Amino acid sequence: MSHPHDLLVVGSVALDSVETVSAFREEVLGGSASFVSVAASFFCPVRLVAVVGDDFPPEHVAYLEERGIDIEGLQRQAGRTFRWRGRYSSDLNHRTTLDTQLNVFAGFRPELPPACRRTGLVFLANIDPTLQLEVLSQVERPLIVGMDTMNFWIEGSRAALERVLQRIDFLLLNEEEARLLSQDHNLSRAARAIQRLGPTNVVVKRGDAGALLFHGEQVFAAPAMPLSEVVDPTGAGDAFAGGFMGYLARTWTEGPLDGRLLRRAMICGSTMASFCCEDFSLDRFRTLQMDQIEERFSAFRHLTHFEDLTIT
Amino acid sequence: MSHPHDLLVVGSVALDSVETVSAFREEVLGGSASFVSVAASFFCPVRLVAVVGDDFPPEHVAYLEERGIDIEGLQRQAGRTFRWRGRYSSDLNHRTTLDTQLNVFAGFRPELPPACRRTGLVFLANIDPTLQLEVLSQVERPLIVGMDTMNFWIEGSRAALERVLQRIDFLLLNEEEARLLSQDHNLSRAARAIQRLGPTNVVVKRGDAGALLFHGEQVFAAPAMPLSEVVDPTGAGDAFAGGFMGYLARTWTEGPLDGRLLRRAMICGSTMASFCCEDFSLDRFRTLQMDQIEERFSAFRHLTHFEDLTIT
Repeated sequence: MSHPHDLLVVGSVALDSVETVSAFREEVLGGSASFVSVAASFFCPVRLVAVVGDDFPPEHVAYLEERGIDIEGLQRQAGRTFRWRGRYSSDLNHRTTLDTQLNVFAGFRPELPPACRRTGLVFLANIDPTLQLEVLSQVERPLIVGMDTMNFWIEGSRAALERVLQRIDFLLLNEEEARLLSQDHNLSRAARAIQRLGPTNVVVKRGDAGALLFHGEQVFAAPAMPLSEVVDPTGAGDAFAGGFMGYLARTWTEGPLDGRLLRRAMICGSTMASFCCEDFSLDRFRTLQMDQIEERFSAFRHLTHFEDLTIT
Repeated sequence: MSHPHDLLVVGSVALDSVETVSAFREEVLGGSASFVSVAASFFCPVRLVAVVGDDFPPEHVAYLEERGIDIEGLQRQAGRTFRWRGRYSSDLNHRTTLDTQLNVFAGFRPELPPACRRTGLVFLANIDPTLQLEVLSQVERPLIVGMDTMNFWIEGSRAALERVLQRIDFLLLNEEEARLLSQDHNLSRAARAIQRLGPTNVVVKRGDAGALLFHGEQVFAAPAMPLSEVVDPTGAGDAFAGGFMGYLARTWTEGPLDGRLLRRAMICGSTMASFCCEDFSLDRFRTLQMDQIEERFSAFRHLTHFEDLTIT
């Protein structure tokens, strides 16, 4: 078994236009698979499968390659790249989608190059669950599979979604999606209900309230790092997934997934999500160094740890 | 210096009527000072200063005495006790106040019996900051002072509030109040701005997202315990304050407040808040035992702790 494992990421690559109260960025690199891949690339070899149009800027391709990401599976099709435009509220906790143009992404059919079919870990970012199933059918024997989804598929493609859920190890989703999927407002019960649909592990992402890991009967709470300056939260949940899966790919050896390792993976996810918020698009990752990742991981320990109770 | 210290609690004692989706309680024991006092009484001697009307049920007085709370400062006045009526949303995360009748609480003037004037720790629950100042003027040399407040005083009694803030060690408030007081949506910056108004320590309570302690330049994040059944969150923030201040009264000896002790106090606060949510009013505390408190404290360690990063 080679080590570290490699990670296959399948999802969207997009051009995002983002408005906040203080700034605006036009057609910057975005898309779930971009954030997952780049965040994971700090930990393990990554293979990206996605589609872009013939207008996709070559400098974005160059950046993905610079991060060491295998882009053999990045299809280029005639037409325009997926575009998304959104505006954040002044407190950055709410966003409004102003425009979505699927463009070439509307006809995306993931086709895995031979090397991608033998990856150890797979992350199915937020795409049609029917396509997620097609990806899984093309991978030979994945060791660990994680996935994300969204309200659109939960409400519109429930049957296909439930088939994927039976074949994965980790579902990462946000709290509203967890409530919608389980039809239960209580997050603990919601996560337990989702576990009964298939995945042993459910990660509920809660934005600036952190993330909860439900691992078998165990629960782990990772806080979000309190940042004094949040520039753009776009992609933070995907950066979390990239840090989480990337750390598993880097350190997991074999056998059942250990809770201690999963807890560290949650903090790596929180670490990458916190960096993601510090700048627009993937810009913070362009200068990020491994020692800064290690330093922030340690900051999470300082943020959360405490000693045994002493009742004198 | 006697040990443990005693805690003076000044605030409201009320009769609450609470509606949730699944149940309804009419005129049960409530009020900020009730929740703070009862939660703290598991850790230290408590002296309660508040006012009730001549309709206040004797069984509630008996319960406070049963908890060992000194009620010499509980004034009884002709008239009706403070009443509050509220309804929770189905997910229990939002509540609507249906009715507030201040009754005898409208004319509350805290008068401290001699024993109360010499307490080591003081908690000023959510009352008019002018009254909070009157309380402080009656206490001889308090060692540690904590306080709560609310949007009504932040917006309407800013000058008096700022005078109290200069005389306290701990401000506990919820995140909306922190944003309102600081005029900054970012919680880290908001807490730093509040520290500049006086208190070295600011605790931002965030409901089911936990609580943040800003202690000098340090930050500590305490999660909320994920509960599979939340019955009634009324008073959880006050129970947090009671657990927090009660633990300080029990264990702090002298000298500057140590961050390690404050972290454990935060978890004692979170522990008492989590128990508070498990039943209506103060009912969960009626059967609560110290070994259950210790067990939940340990559960918080299991919920949050993780090992050093290993990048192999």
